[in-house]
Amino acid sequence: MSTGFASEALFSGLPIGILSDSYKAGHFTQYPKATEASAYGEFRSGYDKDEEDTRCVFYGIRYIVETFLHRRWTRSDVDNVSKFYATHKAPFNTEYTWPKDLFYDIVEECDGFFPVKIEALPEGMCVNSHVPVFQITAKGKYAGLVTFLETLLCQVWYPTTVATLSRRVRQIVEEGFDRSVDEDRKFLVPSRLRDFGFRGCTCTEQSVVGGCAYLLSFEGSSTMSAAYYAQFMLNGGKAVTCTIPATEHSVMLAWETEREAVENMIDLYGDGIFACVMDSYDYERALREVLPSVARRKTERGDGYLYLRPDSGDPVETVLMALRAGHEVFGSEVNLKGYKVVKGCGVLQGDGINIDVLRQILEAVMEAGYSAENVAFGMGGGLLQKVNRDTMSFATKLSAIVPESTGEERIVMKAPKTDYVEGEAGMRTPTVFPKDLVSPEDNLLEVVYDHKPVDKEWDSFDRVRERVDATWRGLEPAADAVSQQMRHLQAEHNPHE
Amino acid sequence: MSTGFASEALFSGLPIGILSDSYKAGHFTQYPKATEASAYGEFRSGYDKDEEDTRCVFYGIRYIVETFLHRRWTRSDVDNVSKFYATHKAPFNTEYTWPKDLFYDIVEECDGFFPVKIEALPEGMCVNSHVPVFQITAKGKYAGLVTFLETLLCQVWYPTTVATLSRRVRQIVEEGFDRSVDEDRKFLVPSRLRDFGFRGCTCTEQSVVGGCAYLLSFEGSSTMSAAYYAQFMLNGGKAVTCTIPATEHSVMLAWETEREAVENMIDLYGDGIFACVMDSYDYERALREVLPSVARRKTERGDGYLYLRPDSGDPVETVLMALRAGHEVFGSEVNLKGYKVVKGCGVLQGDGINIDVLRQILEAVMEAGYSAENVAFGMGGGLLQKVNRDTMSFATKLSAIVPESTGEERIVMKAPKTDYVEGEAGMRTPTVFPKDLVSPEDNLLEVVYDHKPVDKEWDSFDRVRERVDATWRGLEPAADAVSQQMRHLQAEHNPHE
Repeated sequence: MSTGFASEALFSGLPIGILSDSYKAGHFTQYPKATEASAYGEFRSGYDKDEEDTRCVFYGIRYIVETFLHRRWTRSDVDNVSKFYATHKAPFNTEYTWPKDLFYDIVEECDGFFPVKIEALPEGMCVNSHVPVFQITAKGKYAGLVTFLETLLCQVWYPTTVATLSRRVRQIVEEGFDRSVDEDRKFLVPSRLRDFGFRGCTCTEQSVVGGCAYLLSFEGSSTMSAAYYAQFMLNGGKAVTCTIPATEHSVMLAWETEREAVENMIDLYGDGIFACVMDSYDYERALREVLPSVARRKTERGDGYLYLRPDSGDPVETVLMALRAGHEVFGSEVNLKGYKVVKGCGVLQGDGINIDVLRQILEAVMEAGYSAENVAFGMGGGLLQKVNRDTMSFATKLSAIVPESTGEERIVMKAPKTDYVEGEAGMRTPTVFPKDLVSPEDNLLEVVYDHKPVDKEWDSFDRVRERVDATWRGLEPAADAVSQQMRHLQAEHNPHE
Repeated sequence: MSTGFASEALFSGLPIGILSDSYKAGHFTQYPKATEASAYGEFRSGYDKDEEDTRCVFYGIRYIVETFLHRRWTRSDVDNVSKFYATHKAPFNTEYTWPKDLFYDIVEECDGFFPVKIEALPEGMCVNSHVPVFQITAKGKYAGLVTFLETLLCQVWYPTTVATLSRRVRQIVEEGFDRSVDEDRKFLVPSRLRDFGFRGCTCTEQSVVGGCAYLLSFEGSSTMSAAYYAQFMLNGGKAVTCTIPATEHSVMLAWETEREAVENMIDLYGDGIFACVMDSYDYERALREVLPSVARRKTERGDGYLYLRPDSGDPVETVLMALRAGHEVFGSEVNLKGYKVVKGCGVLQGDGINIDVLRQILEAVMEAGYSAENVAFGMGGGLLQKVNRDTMSFATKLSAIVPESTGEERIVMKAPKTDYVEGEAGMRTPTVFPKDLVSPEDNLLEVVYDHKPVDKEWDSFDRVRERVDATWRGLEPAADAVSQQMRHLQAEHNPHE
C-alpha cells in the first residue's frame, strides 16, 4: 500500500481539516440533518469548449487518494486545526463554525481515516463530457462532510485537462504522420512532443502531476520530476521517458563564437541525437553561415542527428527556414509518400507552441513538401500551465441527500446519486443511466477508497497508457453520454436546470 | 532554522539531481571549462505587459530555498538519480550525460548541500521590471552547475505574479474607497478581495504558494491551506486571515425551498456576517421574492450583515441587481461622500472575476450611487491559476563566466554579473548599476544561501506585508530601473542585444 515517498511525504504538515475552502468547514451546519449524501464530479465540456470532440482523458484520482486519504490523521493534527479555526474568524469576532467534534471522532472512531467512500473511473479511461468521473458518499453523522473534500477532489481537473490536451496533440501528430511519414518511421510519434513545462509550473508538485499526465501520450519529457516519479512510483522502475542532449542560450553565449559552441556539441554528442539553439545572436545568419561551416565536422562524426532549435520569431516561419537550411546543407531523401526527409537534421520548435500553432506548423511543413518526421515540438507553459478549471468546465455537484426528517432520498441536482456509468451495448460508449438500470458489474466507477484504503492494486503507468490509447480510439468524439432515461429523471427532479 | 513541516517534508522523495529540465543535466559538459559563473533572474515586463506600471512585488524565494536547499542530499539520493539517468536515454541508446561525479562530490565534500551561493531581494520588496530579483553563483569545479537550479528558481515567477496581481487589485479597491467610502470605514479594504482559488489550483502546493502571495495584500482568504501555512509557518502563529460562513449551491438545494435555506443561515449566523448564494434556481426571483420574505427574520435577529452572492450571469449586472434589491428591502444611508450604503446587506461577487471585471464593477457601482464598501469580491482561477511565466515575462540569464583558458570574466548576456541593485539617492528607486559602482552595503540583493543554509532570520509574514505596502507606494510606477552606466556596459559587451 505504501507508495514510498513523494505522495506520502507531501505536505505532511498540512492537516486535512484545513485542506478545503473556508466555507466548506461550515456546511455541515447548513445542510438539513441527513443520514446519507453523495456528490460527484464531471467535465461539462470538451477541451476548450470543443463541441465536435468532447472526449476527456480521466487521470489523477490516484495521486489525490494516496496523498490525502491514505494518511491516518491524528489527534495532534486536529489540535492544530483547532488552533487555526479559533483565529480564522469573521471580523467582529464571530466564532467560526467547523466540525470539531466530527474531526475528533475521525481520530477516535475511524482509525484516523476520513469517513467517506470514493468511486472513480479507472485511471486513463476516456469518456465524453458529462460522465461522472468520481463520486463521493458520506453516511450517518458524517453525512454533512460529503463536500468537505470537494476542494481536493476538484483538482483532478488539472491532470485530466493536461492528459486530454496531450492526447489531442498526439492525434494531430498521428494525422500528419499518416499523410507524410513512411510506416517504418512511425515509431517516432511518441517523441514528437516534448514537455518543456517544468520551469513554467507554479511549483514542483504541479510539474509531477501535470508532467505525468502528458506522459500518458508521449515519451519525450524534459520535466525530470515527473519522469522520475512516473518511472519509480507508478511503473515499477521501468523507464517511461527519453531525452537528448541540447544547448540553451547560456551555453551558446559562453563561447567566443557560436560556431565553437556547435562544434563542441558535435565533438561530444555528434554520433547521436542532439539539439542546438540557433537564435542566440542572429537566427538567419546562423542558418546561413554557422550551419554550413560545421557541416563537414558533423558528417565526419558519423550518423548523428542534429535538431536545429529556433527560439524566437514566428514559429511557422522559423521552422520552414531551418528545414530549408538543413535541406541545402545536408540534402534530403524523398520518402514513399513523396515528402522530403532531411538527412541527419531536423527542427525542434519549442518556442510559442500551443496546440493551434503546432497544427499550423505541421500543415505548413507538409505543404512545403517536407515530411512531418522532420519536426519535433517542445511545449512549456502551453502544456502545463495555460489551462484552467474552465478549460473543460469541471464542476462538482451534490447528487443526493437523505434528510433525517423524511428518510427519503432527495434528488437536488442535475445528476442524481443514481447516476451510473456503463458501456452501451454495441457502441461501448460510457453513458450515464439512472442507477437502477445499471448492474453493479457494469458500473464503470470503481471503489478507490472506502472509509480507509481499499485493497486495490493500481494499474502500472504502462497499463494506464494502453488504456488511454485504446479508449480514446474507441470513443465517438462527440457522443451524447447522457441516456434518455437519465434525462427524464433529471427533468422530473430538477426542473430548474 | 527548521521550518517544521510542509516545506521540509515536501517531496522528500524527489532528489535534487532530477529537479531540473533534462537538458540542464548535460550543460556542465557544454560550457567552456570555467572557474566561476553567475546567473540571475528578472521580470522583463510589468503585469500583463503594462508599460505604465512595471512594478513587481517580489515574493517566494524563501519557500524555494528552504524546501530544496536546506536539505542535505545523501548518497542514496544520488544513487537513485543514477538509476534514473541510466534509463532516461535518447533513442538508439545514446548514453545520457549527467554530472554524476559532481553530485557524489556534493555528498562527500559539501556535506550534502548544493554548492552555490544565492542572493535575492528581500521578500515582499517592490521593484520595477528589469531589476534582478535573484543571482546565483557557482565556483571551481561546480561552476558548470550554475544553471542546474534554474528550473526551480524560475518558479518565483508564480508567487511574484500573484502578489503583483493582488497588489494591483488592492490599488483599485483603495481608489474606489478614496472616492466613495468614509474614512472610518476604510478598515474594510483588506477584506474586499477574497481568495476563492484553492479548487482551481493544479495541486495543494500551488494553493499554498499562490495563496500566501495573495495574502500579502488582503486578508479574506478561503484557501485555508495557505492561511494555515502563513499563520503557523511564516508568522509565529499570529493569524493573517479572516472568513465568514457562506452557503454554496449544494446547501441551498438540499432544502425543500431556497427560503428555508436562507432562514437556516439567519438562525445560525444572522447576528454576524454571512453570505448566501442566490442563483440556485432563479436569481431575479430570489432577489424579488425570497429576500423580502426573510427580511423581517434577519432584522429581528440583530445587527448582522448578509452578503448576497450572485454566481452566474453578467457580473456587473448581477451586482447592481443585488444592490438595488438590498436597498429596497433594507434601505440605505447616504455617507459623507454622498454614496449609498445599504443597511446590513451587501454583495459578494465571486463568479467571473478578474482584475478588469473587478474594476468595471466598482466603477458601475459608484456610478449608480453606491459606495464601494457595499461590494466584496471573490477571485478564484483569475487569481491563482490564470497567470503564467509570460504574464510578467520572467527569464533567467547567465550573467558572467570566467573561462579557465583566459581567467578573464566573459560577459555574455544583457545583465552582467556586475549588475547590482541599489536605491538611487533621492528617488529611492531600485536601479541596476555595474557592480563596481555599488558598495556592498548598498546592494539590495541579500545572501539567502551560501553553499549551506545561512544564519538568516526571515522576516515574519506581517513584516513582509508591511514591506510590500511601503515599497509599492514608494515606487514610481514606470521608473526606468536600468542606469545609464549599466546600459553602456551592456552595449559594450553584448552588442547583439
